[in-house]
Amino acid sequence: MINLDMALSTKPAPVQPDLSHWPHVVIVGGGFGGLEVARGLVDKNVRVTIIDRHNFHTFLPLLYQVATAMLEPAEVAYPIRTVFGKAPNVRFRHGQVSHVDHERQVVVLSDDAELAYDHLVIATGATAAFFGIPGASQHAIPLYSLADARRLRNRLLSALEHADAVADTAPIGLNFVIVGGGPTGVETSGALSELIKTVIKRDGLKLDPTRVRVILVDMAPRLLTPFPEKASAYALKELERMGVEVEFGRSVVEVEEHAIRFADGERLRVAAVIWAAGVTANGTLASDVQDKTGPGGRVRVNEFLQIADRTNAWAVGDSAAIPSGDNTFYPQLAPVAMQSGRHVAAQIARQLDGKAVVPFKFRDKGIMATIGRHAAVATLPKGPTVKGTLGWLAWLGLHLWYLVGFRNKLRVMINWTWRYFDWPSGPRLIVADAETAD
Amino acid sequence: MINLDMALSTKPAPVQPDLSHWPHVVIVGGGFGGLEVARGLVDKNVRVTIIDRHNFHTFLPLLYQVATAMLEPAEVAYPIRTVFGKAPNVRFRHGQVSHVDHERQVVVLSDDAELAYDHLVIATGATAAFFGIPGASQHAIPLYSLADARRLRNRLLSALEHADAVADTAPIGLNFVIVGGGPTGVETSGALSELIKTVIKRDGLKLDPTRVRVILVDMAPRLLTPFPEKASAYALKELERMGVEVEFGRSVVEVEEHAIRFADGERLRVAAVIWAAGVTANGTLASDVQDKTGPGGRVRVNEFLQIADRTNAWAVGDSAAIPSGDNTFYPQLAPVAMQSGRHVAAQIARQLDGKAVVPFKFRDKGIMATIGRHAAVATLPKGPTVKGTLGWLAWLGLHLWYLVGFRNKLRVMINWTWRYFDWPSGPRLIVADAETAD
Repeated sequence: MINLDMALSTKPAPVQPDLSHWPHVVIVGGGFGGLEVARGLVDKNVRVTIIDRHNFHTFLPLLYQVATAMLEPAEVAYPIRTVFGKAPNVRFRHGQVSHVDHERQVVVLSDDAELAYDHLVIATGATAAFFGIPGASQHAIPLYSLADARRLRNRLLSALEHADAVADTAPIGLNFVIVGGGPTGVETSGALSELIKTVIKRDGLKLDPTRVRVILVDMAPRLLTPFPEKASAYALKELERMGVEVEFGRSVVEVEEHAIRFADGERLRVAAVIWAAGVTANGTLASDVQDKTGPGGRVRVNEFLQIADRTNAWAVGDSAAIPSGDNTFYPQLAPVAMQSGRHVAAQIARQLDGKAVVPFKFRDKGIMATIGRHAAVATLPKGPTVKGTLGWLAWLGLHLWYLVGFRNKLRVMINWTWRYFDWPSGPRLIVADAETAD
Repeated sequence: MINLDMALSTKPAPVQPDLSHWPHVVIVGGGFGGLEVARGLVDKNVRVTIIDRHNFHTFLPLLYQVATAMLEPAEVAYPIRTVFGKAPNVRFRHGQVSHVDHERQVVVLSDDAELAYDHLVIATGATAAFFGIPGASQHAIPLYSLADARRLRNRLLSALEHADAVADTAPIGLNFVIVGGGPTGVETSGALSELIKTVIKRDGLKLDPTRVRVILVDMAPRLLTPFPEKASAYALKELERMGVEVEFGRSVVEVEEHAIRFADGERLRVAAVIWAAGVTANGTLASDVQDKTGPGGRVRVNEFLQIADRTNAWAVGDSAAIPSGDNTFYPQLAPVAMQSGRHVAAQIARQLDGKAVVPFKFRDKGIMATIGRHAAVATLPKGPTVKGTLGWLAWLGLHLWYLVGFRNKLRVMINWTWRYFDWPSGPRLIVADAETAD
């Protein structure tokens, strides 16, 4: 993805030659998977069109830092056109896909425009899964888009402002509940407790820190279940050191506007519920290949990543149920998305060269999660688990490396450095809904 | 304002002593005027409360750069709490003032909370004046808040994306009309034409540049009327060199959703109408002193900046009609706002010391406007007019200097430097309404 920085050259895009006779590859979705497919086809004799309802790629792993006012939206988002600025055979189409007609081989957009394709790649990603829990989709806030992140940031900061405003007359406590102890839940709860401490201390908010609670709940008996036991134990120790209350074996039965109810009957008044409980495939495109819809609403693909065994319809990343064995599937993680995207690009290229397609193999390079400003865990496959500052630095480096665009890397690095040494003025602006409304 | 960078110290705010016996100064509005009042009282024996409906100060002179995707919202906004982080006698109250009860000396907020004051300062600023032109307030976009800037940015970028999307099937032209040839209109039209050229060239948009028009209209016979003739002539030359069509002596009679109608009968289809035609006092607080409402809905003040000759009610900046002579008033400009704010702080301090108040005198330090990336005009009082790159550098320096917060200065400087040498990837994200909705 780093090579995409070619987009930052100072030269303008060359005049586009006529490529109309080249096969047309339509990629639905500009996330990790979709971008990798396009990138793999930049120097091939195909026309590529990326369709996305946003004109930018969102770096999902850092959304929680936007939500906790550590980074700005523009620092985790990058215009898709800019990514491929110099590639004459890649185009971007801003729009929402309503459905795919696999027989006529056209993608139909919500404005009824149609794009005919020779190859289709579904890369629509995943979104939060609410498991049909009453009120969850209305009142809990997930973290799968810039909109989510900004909505959450506004909710958090507004709650703190409100508590300060009424501190003299009718002081209140604030409960923030994070549902889900996976990487997102751990990272968000850690960052949130740091945000609250900072805001109270630096901004002199009239709040009793002991009455502002950050509560992480999970049904499982430990955090970061994909990690080894000792990583989970370390994460728990760090979170508790940071003042996060971690409660295991608790399942949510309802989310109300200002409260959350648990299976054990407890009803807790909350300022915000952050939903990090699970994911499901994004959008309805999977239903266009109904018979091939797999677990979590994902599109079932064969070992070559082809949909319904068609030779020219593919699915990658979180939107694809990629077999890792008999009825087992690869997890919905960024590395799987990127590797599957690269694989599909390679297979399309092989077909153009008249070569046979080869099966997808995922190379596990390990997983990592950050807990606070100095703490992270990184687990290498069959390897050691790196903890503490070293793990944190590894986390920093990796995320900077994968962040699209040199300029974004630079800005994020500046912000992180700044925050590491001092943290007075993160962009703590309450700007979204309210502002766009006024 | 530069001294406000004390807020960037690494030390936490000290524990607040009990100041309850100190007189309470309530400042309504955290703009240039309001911040200067508070800043002038930081080391005085008064309690200060700044009330604003946003938790941040907005640097209005650069809003047009947010609208044209040159800067990010966080780069022209700064949390008010952070500004006064170390000042124990200054507090921030996030809220909307519904009215002022001058008899009981309380400010009433929209949540019905009441703040009793010993001194009141109205610093609510100005907003766009639509002069009752039908459709203007609904369909034209002004530039007086971050919300305006982001709404305009989304409109501009979405229009370009749409034109590109239909380029193959039904190519369209795009007209962007800026109403008003003052500094805001000149700066915005210049920046907009640069944005369009950049986006078309760098992003390879399928648009015919000759069919994308930026039209600046004004009733007056010249641009930048507050400037000398030669500055106006220079601005006109520069704008036309940049491809902006400037039309004088044209008045708008109606703005429709996708069109604008002029007094001469022409009806032009538009992608966006940018409203830079004039300002009026912001909010309704002036009506609480009805008999004292002056031109443009501003609060009439005496030469000491006192409202209705009360000794403890003041108004500053764009929301005040500040006499510059018999029935003449100072213009609604940032320098007037800042100087009047400092003056009120000084007068309140004088009263506390038992001294008599002194009249306000505005010291004109000149005006400046930037036209493009290398061109600006700066006019010194009774002095020369600086043009071209020198004027542009002066403009850059001055705006950086007044930008609140070292970190924001740094980020804006980086962006400007970046853009000066190369301009591939401004934060061209379409994120507001659509995104907060989805």
